[in-house]
Amino acid sequence: MALITPRTPAGTMELLPRRQVTFQRMLDTIRRNYERFGFIPLETPVFEVADVLLSKSGGETEKQVYFVQSTGAIEQGHKPDLAMRFDLTVPTARYVAQYERELAFPFRRYQMQRVYRGERAQKGRYREFYQCDIDVIGKDSLPVAYDAEMPAVIYSVFTELNVGPFQINFNNRKILLGMFEALGVTDPGIRILVLRQVDKLDKLSREDVLNLLTADGIALSGEQAASVLDMIGFSGSSADTLAHLDRLGLDNDLFKEGVEELRQVVAALIAFGVPETHWRINLAIARGLDYYTGTVYETFLTDHRSLGSVCSGGRYENLAGLYTKSKLPGVGISIGLTRLFYALEQAGIVKDGDSSVQALVTQFDPSLLNDYLAIGAALRQGGVNTEIYLSPDKPAKQFKYADKAGIRYAVIMGSDEKAKGEVLVKDMVAGTQEAVKLGELVGWFKGAIG
Amino acid sequence: MALITPRTPAGTMELLPRRQVTFQRMLDTIRRNYERFGFIPLETPVFEVADVLLSKSGGETEKQVYFVQSTGAIEQGHKPDLAMRFDLTVPTARYVAQYERELAFPFRRYQMQRVYRGERAQKGRYREFYQCDIDVIGKDSLPVAYDAEMPAVIYSVFTELNVGPFQINFNNRKILLGMFEALGVTDPGIRILVLRQVDKLDKLSREDVLNLLTADGIALSGEQAASVLDMIGFSGSSADTLAHLDRLGLDNDLFKEGVEELRQVVAALIAFGVPETHWRINLAIARGLDYYTGTVYETFLTDHRSLGSVCSGGRYENLAGLYTKSKLPGVGISIGLTRLFYALEQAGIVKDGDSSVQALVTQFDPSLLNDYLAIGAALRQGGVNTEIYLSPDKPAKQFKYADKAGIRYAVIMGSDEKAKGEVLVKDMVAGTQEAVKLGELVGWFKGAIG
Repeated sequence: MALITPRTPAGTMELLPRRQVTFQRMLDTIRRNYERFGFIPLETPVFEVADVLLSKSGGETEKQVYFVQSTGAIEQGHKPDLAMRFDLTVPTARYVAQYERELAFPFRRYQMQRVYRGERAQKGRYREFYQCDIDVIGKDSLPVAYDAEMPAVIYSVFTELNVGPFQINFNNRKILLGMFEALGVTDPGIRILVLRQVDKLDKLSREDVLNLLTADGIALSGEQAASVLDMIGFSGSSADTLAHLDRLGLDNDLFKEGVEELRQVVAALIAFGVPETHWRINLAIARGLDYYTGTVYETFLTDHRSLGSVCSGGRYENLAGLYTKSKLPGVGISIGLTRLFYALEQAGIVKDGDSSVQALVTQFDPSLLNDYLAIGAALRQGGVNTEIYLSPDKPAKQFKYADKAGIRYAVIMGSDEKAKGEVLVKDMVAGTQEAVKLGELVGWFKGAIG
Repeated sequence: MALITPRTPAGTMELLPRRQVTFQRMLDTIRRNYERFGFIPLETPVFEVADVLLSKSGGETEKQVYFVQSTGAIEQGHKPDLAMRFDLTVPTARYVAQYERELAFPFRRYQMQRVYRGERAQKGRYREFYQCDIDVIGKDSLPVAYDAEMPAVIYSVFTELNVGPFQINFNNRKILLGMFEALGVTDPGIRILVLRQVDKLDKLSREDVLNLLTADGIALSGEQAASVLDMIGFSGSSADTLAHLDRLGLDNDLFKEGVEELRQVVAALIAFGVPETHWRINLAIARGLDYYTGTVYETFLTDHRSLGSVCSGGRYENLAGLYTKSKLPGVGISIGLTRLFYALEQAGIVKDGDSSVQALVTQFDPSLLNDYLAIGAALRQGGVNTEIYLSPDKPAKQFKYADKAGIRYAVIMGSDEKAKGEVLVKDMVAGTQEAVKLGELVGWFKGAIG
């Protein structure tokens, strides 16, 4: 029989073991922090009833949704009635609406699952990727203090992920909307274009950006353009930025509301103990102009700004209006871990991990197999992830295995060591080895692996 | 706009928060034990190239596979070329063949992911369910000692899952095959029917089972039927069972090989330290008659035998013959956690968990918000999963929330407590409360939650 070439569909996620361990540790770190901050786990099915998932008219094609059909349904010529989730927000909205009466509000959930997009196959396009989301969802109302909790979580997660310096940027969309209202810029499309140009203040001079804002296509007046740059081009400490906003003194209710919310977020963020080295108000960020209604967040790795935002989110007015009449305001953030992982690998920031196996008990002398089994059992009992090498191969082959698998410590015992009641522990990375008494072996590992 | 009824497709997995926490803890326990025994994580994509996944001819319809297609592909009238995994074995076989040169052998992986079957919607049928698998895969050969490791893992997992008494049953299929050869029972269909009837020895008398074996449809001779019952109807300690097999003295190589392997597994299992109270040789179990070739396992909950086997597996000759010429023998087990979870819930063995949130810092006096944020930060820093209630609701509403959410401990501080440098910790379950000094709060929680 001809062999079938083993392969995976383009754009899906699969890793070799040591990369998988690294990825798994990142997932674990994120989850641990989410739980630490009092979020509870949620998992939803990978596919949903198509009509429920795709209730927003016209979004299907754009989202490149994957449809699902069983063999039987295809044979009967049915149209697919199941579709795979393309994000975690819609399933969460559906979940909250469905179980509204059973849930305690504020409902704080974390969800870390893969999502699916029927993208064309090309480099950097993922058809399957992890999202790691948290949201706090209130019933009827949700105080703005919750908006300050999100940067506290981001700070904690990214500090523990240990991926170098980062900065959380946040803003309040009411400030932008109020400003546009006050300046008479009413067209939503123009507003988006304006924000996109202002974002270039990093790279271009003020004059160049002014020219872009007054050119065809946007066509702000010179006065409007200058006002926009004066207002949202400002950069400084949070206290300076709030003072700047007060000085502007725009006579617009939305603007004032936004400034007041921003002030509360800053105050709470300081009380949460998040150092200002790691966050700033950035009046230029907007996160798209329809879903979010208040605070918005982006997070940048200082040394890898080109990766774009690695953790984003914001405040929204009403999560589940398609499914329930209840008003469910919320605030949340999302980490696109697959994209982040590949980018961090490429940048050399994350590397293949050691194996999750911490000790390899080798088989030096097959007649001592029962001793090796007992040593392995004791290590496992002591909380050390332990593999016992059960094939009577030559020691060199066993060490080569440990090396390839990324297992750092090999435990060796021949009859000499047995007579002395000890083993040798070989450090495969350092290339050293030391004798350890059997009764002290678990303690030795506790010290070595922390 | 009309509301859309929020709902999930029949047979998919979704849980309310406190059930989700319980489920998550079971997943974590299984994973911790798998890692403790030196298995490394693997995740594969939820869908595979259809031709790769469905390479075994004719299996598609039977397996009720789900096919996947993007919006674009449907519009162009393409046939689906992607299919969702229906188990974890085929993706693992594909993975090992695909990355053979990069992997270290024996390759020991655990995989805990959802699998999909296009079942008809009916009670007890799952279209989406978790499997939690481990396998050890050798290159060319794999010593039988690895077969003894599996019951050691099962013992460890089910002890920690804490779901009451259980017993691991194992056998060696070579013994059954050798016996059938020796007795001249050659038809594979008849062999299956015979084993199914022998299984009834629990409930029926020996005579009744003899009658079943000699009746139309199976039609063994009286002598054959009696021999089968004599051989595999035996029940006793492992030593007694091995002695019984020796006494039979069947002149069949396969039989002898099976007995020898069984003897080795028993010896290693004792050396692994698995108490014989939790395992036994059961000569009647077979696990289907084609995939497995040697040791086979089933696990039963002693007080809930009707659930059937809750953890099964076995030894196979060659994992990935469809994808590679390399011979890859292995041994593995699988826990169908979704089915197990629902069954354990129904039997009252697992219950809704406490929330994963361990402390709720309540807001007794809004003017002390910054104190609450600082207390929350300190608890989180100390490793306590902590939610801070940020809405200035009445205390009764906050306690009601803690109660509904299943959060056991509420932390309360008014100005009196603040003046004394302490908080009150209210135990929502016991209904008691005690004063704890601020500096001792983390320690108090460490003691309370272990």
